[in-house]
Amino acid sequence: MTEIMERMEEKELLKLLSDHKYAQIREIMENENAVDIAEFMGEIPPEFLLKFFRVLPKDMAADVFAEMDPEEQEVLINGFTDRELKDVLDDMYLDDTVDMLEEMPANVVNRVLAKADSETRKQINELLKYPEDSAGAVMTTEYMRLRKDLKVPEAVAWIRKRGEDCADLYNCFVTDANRQLLGTITLRELLLAGDERTVESLMDENVISVKTLDDKETAAKLFDRYEITTLPVTDQEDRMVGIITIDDAIDVLQEENTEDMVKMAAVAPAGETYFDTGILHHVKNRIPWLFVLMFSSMMTGIIIEHYEGAFQAAPLLVALMPMLMDTGGNCGTQASTLIIRGMALDEIRPRDFFKVFWTEFRVSGMVGAALAVANGVRIYLQYRDPSLALVIAFTLLFVVMVAKLLGCCLPMLVKRLHLDPALVASPLLTTFVDICSVTIYFTIATHIMHV
Amino acid sequence: MTEIMERMEEKELLKLLSDHKYAQIREIMENENAVDIAEFMGEIPPEFLLKFFRVLPKDMAADVFAEMDPEEQEVLINGFTDRELKDVLDDMYLDDTVDMLEEMPANVVNRVLAKADSETRKQINELLKYPEDSAGAVMTTEYMRLRKDLKVPEAVAWIRKRGEDCADLYNCFVTDANRQLLGTITLRELLLAGDERTVESLMDENVISVKTLDDKETAAKLFDRYEITTLPVTDQEDRMVGIITIDDAIDVLQEENTEDMVKMAAVAPAGETYFDTGILHHVKNRIPWLFVLMFSSMMTGIIIEHYEGAFQAAPLLVALMPMLMDTGGNCGTQASTLIIRGMALDEIRPRDFFKVFWTEFRVSGMVGAALAVANGVRIYLQYRDPSLALVIAFTLLFVVMVAKLLGCCLPMLVKRLHLDPALVASPLLTTFVDICSVTIYFTIATHIMHV
Repeated sequence: MTEIMERMEEKELLKLLSDHKYAQIREIMENENAVDIAEFMGEIPPEFLLKFFRVLPKDMAADVFAEMDPEEQEVLINGFTDRELKDVLDDMYLDDTVDMLEEMPANVVNRVLAKADSETRKQINELLKYPEDSAGAVMTTEYMRLRKDLKVPEAVAWIRKRGEDCADLYNCFVTDANRQLLGTITLRELLLAGDERTVESLMDENVISVKTLDDKETAAKLFDRYEITTLPVTDQEDRMVGIITIDDAIDVLQEENTEDMVKMAAVAPAGETYFDTGILHHVKNRIPWLFVLMFSSMMTGIIIEHYEGAFQAAPLLVALMPMLMDTGGNCGTQASTLIIRGMALDEIRPRDFFKVFWTEFRVSGMVGAALAVANGVRIYLQYRDPSLALVIAFTLLFVVMVAKLLGCCLPMLVKRLHLDPALVASPLLTTFVDICSVTIYFTIATHIMHV
Repeated sequence: MTEIMERMEEKELLKLLSDHKYAQIREIMENENAVDIAEFMGEIPPEFLLKFFRVLPKDMAADVFAEMDPEEQEVLINGFTDRELKDVLDDMYLDDTVDMLEEMPANVVNRVLAKADSETRKQINELLKYPEDSAGAVMTTEYMRLRKDLKVPEAVAWIRKRGEDCADLYNCFVTDANRQLLGTITLRELLLAGDERTVESLMDENVISVKTLDDKETAAKLFDRYEITTLPVTDQEDRMVGIITIDDAIDVLQEENTEDMVKMAAVAPAGETYFDTGILHHVKNRIPWLFVLMFSSMMTGIIIEHYEGAFQAAPLLVALMPMLMDTGGNCGTQASTLIIRGMALDEIRPRDFFKVFWTEFRVSGMVGAALAVANGVRIYLQYRDPSLALVIAFTLLFVVMVAKLLGCCLPMLVKRLHLDPALVASPLLTTFVDICSVTIYFTIATHIMHV
């Protein structure tokens, strides 16, 4: 819920609009944040959008526009005069413009490109060419470049003169005539240094950077690891071409977290919010995995068919099956989730395989023993059947251990094969564990109970 | 894998150390990032730690120290001379010092506090008092304060003079004599403004802030929403007491993502990395939920017992049970994960309940119908038993719909009760869905097959 919405009803604001009380609206909006206004604009009827946008304080309009959803941006662009379009585009950062254009139909893209000046148009076209998941696709080309021979006051003066269009002023980049990146210097270092120092003497030559074609997730993780707020991007010839800013890095991190979570729930990632995904798209994202999983759980069925004699003789075995299978599945899920998340955060590395195995071996032994004893006693007290109690206890111990060891090994093996470990999370793992659980269960049951 | 480790073996470096080739080590380290060195230090034997640390270039030592794990920090502190301890503490930011002290035993805390000057000691003690999950616990008190009547050149001069100890120079805060927050101004705005402007005329009075006792996750989400890099923190009387910087906000976001994921896998969050969590702690984090889930899957068993007659008459019903139960569980997991994640990102709000329900109703109808038809045909072809095919098809349709509707409703209801929606994720939901699946299955089977 936006703060605006908390304080006043959408209807009241629309009433002010139809009553032509523009000054009053503008006054209210002046105290709001662009993000909140953009969210509010997503909730008013489209026919009011343009009217409302024109009432916004001039210095706020481009910020609000950049934060809006593509649907509303498109409505506005189609309503804008050429002058209005140019004003908004001039005030927007290049990466925001490119983000917007990626969502627009061709006619809108063409109109926007026609209004941009030729240098901007060239840069937009360059940026639109990078693959969707690459560092190039999230970077902006508007960064602050400094010459290495500048003295501190000259550098500060240069920043004050040329800073207006830069997405970030706090991290400056020192390049040579070939645009090779020589070093970085923060505005903080510049300001805190003595006036006689040069950029070259202050700059950090040990630069962390990525290539345009690197995965954007790799780039985003560097922000977290090195606590940086801007990351330079170079092309294949090591020439600096742009920067990624931290707001985009956070978006990428959150997006990747979402992707991991939904993959672990056997859903194909949509790349859009829940409500922005169409019904058919939802169906398409969910059905494939359900079929795969259904097929593997049929295996479990086949094993059960094989033991028909056993459960005909002791029908109670069937009633206890869900508890054993669920526990196995849950134990596997616990282990696999911890391992998958640990690998995503680089806390667990492929070479830690045996360390992980040994940890899970001990943990699963203890957890398995605890569950085995508790349930063995429970079954004995409930049914007064010592052999059934023994079957359940032994099955639980083995099922828990197998589940947890599969849960830690599978994601690590999948990672070694350079596939996404999230693929063998909970759902797929559960069907593997099911097959093991049922086999262990009936093998032990037929041996101990002679059914 | 750290970059250092990629280039040279740990052993080589330790050999240089025992050969007293300090200059060579220092030279290697000068080209490395503090984060990488800290990670490397986590992998060398503790007895080498102090020796290695003393070889590091002086200007790097505090940075490396701040990035190290608590275990190694403790080893170092215990080995430090008073002089070394004081040097490191003086160079560290307050929030890093506090983070470190939170992990240290009392004797180490006392030694550190004894070495700090009295003002720092007072601030550390204040910060240590905030509850673990509060905004106060992640903030630092070293921020840049500006008077509103300063002209631009005066403000810049002030920042250059007083900036050394501030955790962030790029966001400055304008407060009155009572420390009430009047506005914020960025260094960018200052530098790009004309020399005659005053801080007051440039500052933004519409400040986004949190209270010391607000949840740190609430604070971290504001960084993402408003694309800010520093967030001011005020006390209950609205006096400004500190700032949260974006590196800490990212850590909080990642921590919360991890917590959500492991909770959704029925593990109590450890608050530590996988390897830093002890074996017994792992067991303790996993057993409680397993017992809860075991208990609820016993319900499923009781229902199955009730239908003993049915599966005695048609044993094939048992073999098909895992497929139906797994599919139900997977469908529920898909829906609940999408809803829980959507709510965590504020894309889905409690008032969207009916919108979500209607979406899932249509999606589940289509998914259920597709699975029902595919399996009905498969069963008929395999067993040539039309009534069994009908039972499976109808069961699937209903199970998928019930699972997806439960999967969307439960997390939203739990959220309304102000509990954590992640609690009713996959594992707990699956046991609910199991109970429904088995009931639906045997009800339909007894009616259609007359068993």
